[in-house]
Amino acid sequence: MTGLQRALNDLVIANRILAHHGVFDEYGHVSMRHPGDPARFLMARDCAAAFIEPGDILEFALDGAPVNEGNRPLCAERFLHAAIYAARPEVKSVLCAGSEDVLPFSVTPVPLRAMLGTVGDMGTQVPVWDIAEKFGEDTDLAVSSLERARDLAQRLGGHRVVLRRGVGFVTTGRTLNDAVKTSVYIPKNARTLAQSLQFGKITPISQGEVDQRLAIDPESNAMRRGWEYWAREAGCERWL
Amino acid sequence: MTGLQRALNDLVIANRILAHHGVFDEYGHVSMRHPGDPARFLMARDCAAAFIEPGDILEFALDGAPVNEGNRPLCAERFLHAAIYAARPEVKSVLCAGSEDVLPFSVTPVPLRAMLGTVGDMGTQVPVWDIAEKFGEDTDLAVSSLERARDLAQRLGGHRVVLRRGVGFVTTGRTLNDAVKTSVYIPKNARTLAQSLQFGKITPISQGEVDQRLAIDPESNAMRRGWEYWAREAGCERWL
Amino acid sequence: MTGLQRALNDLVIANRILAHHGVFDEYGHVSMRHPGDPARFLMARDCAAAFIEPGDILEFALDGAPVNEGNRPLCAERFLHAAIYAARPEVKSVLCAGSEDVLPFSVTPVPLRAMLGTVGDMGTQVPVWDIAEKFGEDTDLAVSSLERARDLAQRLGGHRVVLRRGVGFVTTGRTLNDAVKTSVYIPKNARTLAQSLQFGKITPISQGEVDQRLAIDPESNAMRRGWEYWAREAGCERWL
Amino acid sequence: MTGLQRALNDLVIANRILAHHGVFDEYGHVSMRHPGDPARFLMARDCAAAFIEPGDILEFALDGAPVNEGNRPLCAERFLHAAIYAARPEVKSVLCAGSEDVLPFSVTPVPLRAMLGTVGDMGTQVPVWDIAEKFGEDTDLAVSSLERARDLAQRLGGHRVVLRRGVGFVTTGRTLNDAVKTSVYIPKNARTLAQSLQFGKITPISQGEVDQRLAIDPESNAMRRGWEYWAREAGCERWL
Repeated sequence: MTGLQRALNDLVIANRILAHHGVFDEYGHVSMRHPGDPARFLMARDCAAAFIEPGDILEFALDGAPVNEGNRPLCAERFLHAAIYAARPEVKSVLCAGSEDVLPFSVTPVPLRAMLGTVGDMGTQVPVWDIAEKFGEDTDLAVSSLERARDLAQRLGGHRVVLRRGVGFVTTGRTLNDAVKTSVYIPKNARTLAQSLQFGKITPISQGEVDQRLAIDPESNAMRRGWEYWAREAGCERWL
Repeated sequence: MTGLQRALNDLVIANRILAHHGVFDEYGHVSMRHPGDPARFLMARDCAAAFIEPGDILEFALDGAPVNEGNRPLCAERFLHAAIYAARPEVKSVLCAGSEDVLPFSVTPVPLRAMLGTVGDMGTQVPVWDIAEKFGEDTDLAVSSLERARDLAQRLGGHRVVLRRGVGFVTTGRTLNDAVKTSVYIPKNARTLAQSLQFGKITPISQGEVDQRLAIDPESNAMRRGWEYWAREAGCERWL
Repeated sequence: MTGLQRALNDLVIANRILAHHGVFDEYGHVSMRHPGDPARFLMARDCAAAFIEPGDILEFALDGAPVNEGNRPLCAERFLHAAIYAARPEVKSVLCAGSEDVLPFSVTPVPLRAMLGTVGDMGTQVPVWDIAEKFGEDTDLAVSSLERARDLAQRLGGHRVVLRRGVGFVTTGRTLNDAVKTSVYIPKNARTLAQSLQFGKITPISQGEVDQRLAIDPESNAMRRGWEYWAREAGCERWL
Repeated sequence: MTGLQRALNDLVIANRILAHHGVFDEYGHVSMRHPGDPARFLMARDCAAAFIEPGDILEFALDGAPVNEGNRPLCAERFLHAAIYAARPEVKSVLCAGSEDVLPFSVTPVPLRAMLGTVGDMGTQVPVWDIAEKFGEDTDLAVSSLERARDLAQRLGGHRVVLRRGVGFVTTGRTLNDAVKTSVYIPKNARTLAQSLQFGKITPISQGEVDQRLAIDPESNAMRRGWEYWAREAGCERWL
């Protein structure tokens, strides 16, 4: 299997894992930087994640333009992925999901913090991007232009995750598995943090613990154990 | 396929999507205005939504009377649909569901607000109808007469959604998909709002953002992506 | 089909509906008064509800003694059912379930109230029985004797439902369907009440609304719609 | 079937029951002391619990070293099990799970208490082990050495359960079924306690009630009813 075919299969698996976990429903999109060309990225056409097949994956430039013209509907928010790949050379995967559990941390002053060791790699700071700050209070909230995407990328800065007010969260990954693994745990972490805050003073994951988690190779056996398990759970054996 | 057959199939799909999502359980009813006659509407006989087939759909006049007499049990709350179609010519679909997540906003002074972009079309105001206000504290809570239904329609006014104290919510739609899509997200929105209120000052969807969401054609690709996905998830391919 | 065979099949369906809904898990028991002899009741042997078949149903006297000696393990809490049937001639069904959602109302001073119209028949008062009041703080919490059962029946009095501290709830029914239907909604009602209490002043189901719900025949079409739906959902068509 | 084969099958069933209940996901590990040699214990290779088969079970000494060298990946936290077996001769099973519901009790000053009769055997005290106390604020949180494991075992002391800050909980059992049964209920108990604390003064399971629960033979019919039910639910009949 070529590197590109491996990438297409992995992106299909990623979509279906995220759909299976309810991280994606009819909304949600994930991409990866092209394995052969850092100025390109791969993402599915506009389609619910649970149905995506390798033939649905398209190639984009870092301005969000599709490399091959076609007549398949494009994800309106491809610009979000493009701008992050342009701003962050080390990022190899970008994922955007809605989450009712994460949303409260995007619409109130309470910050999202890592409480579970498994999302220590999320870091100790999770910025929030509110489209209204720059684009006013009458948008459709969508990151449907490069201008909006660059503003979000600026708020993301060098962090791992940024929240979108009223929408959900964006995760970056050093690899596709890295982004997927963290994203599966982000809603659980949000729920456990919400409950902990009701109890009183919290002990979050420390900066040192974050650094240790980030030091683990995202492609090591321990970090890939979830991938194979979740791929099977999602019925994706044929693409493994 | 005729326009009527398309409507019957869509109504079956709608029922089954809503059952699949848990928006409907053994209770819950959805209707659409007859595609060929605005003085009629289509709704299933009294039957759990998960089992409805095209042959279960009946036709009603705007006083709730069935067009064809028959011996199939009728939904006791058909009057609710009738009164809304009579009061609101632009409404093409009406849906009524119980929801444990929405109920707290109908039995306390806290108002339901749109927090998720995906329910921005719910509007900035969601009125509450308490049957006891006009009909006293010893009813069975059911909208089982035109008189009760007209009182509810009055409280709904020009809004998209009205809550029923102790029961759930009523959604109106410009199309069937419009009502279904919003209704799938209403319980999620309620949960995320409840959590946000615990955190402090909230940033809900603004009037401008609501207007932008309402400006999107409910039958556009982006708005219909959920319909096809959810229909497949609910096992409805044969009626698509 | 004889009246007794109908009763056995219904009791199997009830068990499986309650297991399917998560009202029963490995714990949970339901009984009905014998259709031919008010001094007897029917209940399954000690077995997880999801596996019960007609051949598992045993007959008991109102002191909890099995009518036919056998070697199948008996439910240790059959005395609870016996004592209620003895104290309440109009009760035709008794059900006992654990519930994490109901438990907080049994271990704190906050009373369980009906908030959903669908559990209006639960009444405006739900007493709590704490075994420690009479039997001390070192029991195994089980209603495994007639003495304990009679104390619980006394606390139940003429009410529909009683909570057991640290265990769950007991529902009585005028028919089997009546007990099952209410019990399916009790955990949902508990969750929605817990959330409502966080919001402030609540509007529960009034006494008049309770009376109206209780006036509905539990075997009417409207009240039986859930039974058939849930039976199919639980894979019980063959016993319908 | 030999005692060892019975043990291997039971350990497979335990893994799959815990996966089926969501107590384990891609993380989670359970072991049992070797039936023929108290200086050994049995645990699966490093693999998601839902896929474990008898051939995946390995044998370890009480220093965490595998008895048979091989090339299958080992669970990094096998030392946790080893240290507990070494410190507690009466313990026959050890289980470690993540739990979003339990976590708040490990990251705040609020203690986990038994509220449900079914987890009375958890005891009235549940200590919390924070790896940072002894090992500093820059670990990866994993119990991946005997030194860390012994420190955790010391915090566990003679208790049934210990929480791991930022990770989840560790349960000990007098038998494998004992550890599994309690662990299935621990997250439910955590949720119900969290809700009860919002209501006010709580009535937890008393020491006397705990003692009564602990007096019940964990291998009695009543305590094994869940095992067979859950094994079937998890598709494990062939190993029963």
